[in-house]
Amino acid sequence: MQSSDGAMYAPQPMPQPVVNPGEFVIGATHLDHGHIFGMCQGLVGAGATLKWVYDPDPSRVAAFRQAFPGVRVARSEEEVLDDPEVKLVAGAAVTNERAPLGLRVIEAGKDYFSDKAPLTTLDQLEAVREATARTGLKYAVYYSERIHVEAAVLAGQLVEQGAIGKVLQFIGLGPHRLNAPSRPDWFFRKELYGGILCDIGSHNFEQMLYYTGSSDATITASTIANYAHPEWPELDDFGDAHIVTDNGATGYCRVDWFTPDGLNTWGDGRTFLLGTDGYIELRKYVNIATNDGPDHVFLVDGNGEHHIRAHGQVGYPFFGELILDCLHRTENAMTQAHALKAAELSVVAQRRAVDLTRR
Amino acid sequence: MQSSDGAMYAPQPMPQPVVNPGEFVIGATHLDHGHIFGMCQGLVGAGATLKWVYDPDPSRVAAFRQAFPGVRVARSEEEVLDDPEVKLVAGAAVTNERAPLGLRVIEAGKDYFSDKAPLTTLDQLEAVREATARTGLKYAVYYSERIHVEAAVLAGQLVEQGAIGKVLQFIGLGPHRLNAPSRPDWFFRKELYGGILCDIGSHNFEQMLYYTGSSDATITASTIANYAHPEWPELDDFGDAHIVTDNGATGYCRVDWFTPDGLNTWGDGRTFLLGTDGYIELRKYVNIATNDGPDHVFLVDGNGEHHIRAHGQVGYPFFGELILDCLHRTENAMTQAHALKAAELSVVAQRRAVDLTRR
Repeated sequence: MQSSDGAMYAPQPMPQPVVNPGEFVIGATHLDHGHIFGMCQGLVGAGATLKWVYDPDPSRVAAFRQAFPGVRVARSEEEVLDDPEVKLVAGAAVTNERAPLGLRVIEAGKDYFSDKAPLTTLDQLEAVREATARTGLKYAVYYSERIHVEAAVLAGQLVEQGAIGKVLQFIGLGPHRLNAPSRPDWFFRKELYGGILCDIGSHNFEQMLYYTGSSDATITASTIANYAHPEWPELDDFGDAHIVTDNGATGYCRVDWFTPDGLNTWGDGRTFLLGTDGYIELRKYVNIATNDGPDHVFLVDGNGEHHIRAHGQVGYPFFGELILDCLHRTENAMTQAHALKAAELSVVAQRRAVDLTRR
Repeated sequence: MQSSDGAMYAPQPMPQPVVNPGEFVIGATHLDHGHIFGMCQGLVGAGATLKWVYDPDPSRVAAFRQAFPGVRVARSEEEVLDDPEVKLVAGAAVTNERAPLGLRVIEAGKDYFSDKAPLTTLDQLEAVREATARTGLKYAVYYSERIHVEAAVLAGQLVEQGAIGKVLQFIGLGPHRLNAPSRPDWFFRKELYGGILCDIGSHNFEQMLYYTGSSDATITASTIANYAHPEWPELDDFGDAHIVTDNGATGYCRVDWFTPDGLNTWGDGRTFLLGTDGYIELRKYVNIATNDGPDHVFLVDGNGEHHIRAHGQVGYPFFGELILDCLHRTENAMTQAHALKAAELSVVAQRRAVDLTRR
């Protein structure tokens, strides 16, 4: 396929549902973060049957039922975990409760799909590694800024096709709008949300490993700060980190809560992939000052400067792959080692970070 | 002033010549790097009278005379240094010869204007600091990627006007096209060019200090590599560095020689300035896939997303300020401490860098 501006690339076919109704039954428990909607939409779009929802807060359950009208309301988490028809449980609990929930799901004999960050401490990481190794069950993670963004999906396909040669470096900018009044109390308590590099940083560590094709990395520098929000002293409003991967690439990310009100979306997320034969820039959610929607892929290679619109072009193959992985006990969507290595880097970067403002 | 898209800003008036012909006489010696043209054009545009040129290579002198037809050809460096009319000598020698040249200029009682990087070792740095402190003479540096780029000049004015609040972070991407056949032998010999973080990295260290308003910084991580050019084992084709400044900001830069052939200019230089109240992105030399020339300033603030074209709008005030600094012994163009601190960071980042490919 040739884009209108001459870039040669071959997007994969748009993903289709991989199972028929009733063939892959899931439940959703703990709706503390709105990501649960995207997680369930992705799975349902790939064919999953959403049978149950549980949350202690009735207003959250009501909002969830509006999005998924056929779902049954469970009276307890146990009612979901005890249903032998349920193959996978999706959860978006408070961040430091995600691992305990996941361990309960796994002990109930089901696969688990966690919102990111999937855990907040190295003790949790060790317990999750032990449980997944012992049972063979999955602790999958919704690293949405790659798997649920078409620009990022297309970038992965371009890299795989060799569009920029060997990937030498990843840079990710992950600014987010704070919108403090919409945030729950736990969002501002570090033990609960895990710190900014653990929380929104985790998207970037996952992408560093993915795009550079590496399986491990060393955190070479990381910082956090609370520059402008003294009313929430435990909020990190800034963080950044530099890594060196086990295959000799580098990665850098900056995350922050400083999206200004004038931006027409929640954040100007960017990705830069430097390769031996070209580079890719993603303007994921906005191409600033153009009013031209999300999912912009810029590819500069030996032939020219190409602007490719990924919106509506590639979809989100992760979800169908995850369903099939659960059914066939494969690891095509994402390996367990990869999902947890990204979590490990996130926690280690956070723990070792130099605090620039609260020393 | 309001831009067409609603951004409020007030560019400074376009700079005009600050002296009349003959009031500020300069010479140019050692034309090893083509930057000497920009250095002299900048000064001549600000009113300087270019009296002399010297280089041992007649072909370089001939090319220089084509650009500056009125210039006289000196038979030796001494002829320039011995002329009492000459106030300042501009030089773009091989990088590790820039400090020895500058010290000779200073010992001759004249101000010096060096191409960047201005020096390659800490011994040279110490000697330059000693000489400038002892004599009061200037060792000015052509950090062209800020002072000779209108997008970068306008960004400085916007920051000064508080357009994005307090600057928290600088990110600079400095890809360059290698174009190896056009490069002299010294370009590939590390002792001579100083390494990539010292060489093209120096632009970025200068900008980190400038835009964050800091006077010192710590190198927290840096890497270099030769990923794809085994035929020149001493070439660093990649480098990056992370810093923490003395006022609690951070800076990150990546420099490389991987500009692909398809880019319509030598490099897609970018700057990202994150502030408490907004952010600025510079697309200095190209706005990829738009065919819309250089000098793009994007400002996102509380009011909206603004695309400001700096080309032809703000000029290059550095050069006139430097001339007046020399005449009045002031430091408005750039302080000596700042110019040399940027050089120090460049050399230290280079020396401490983890070599990713030649360990």
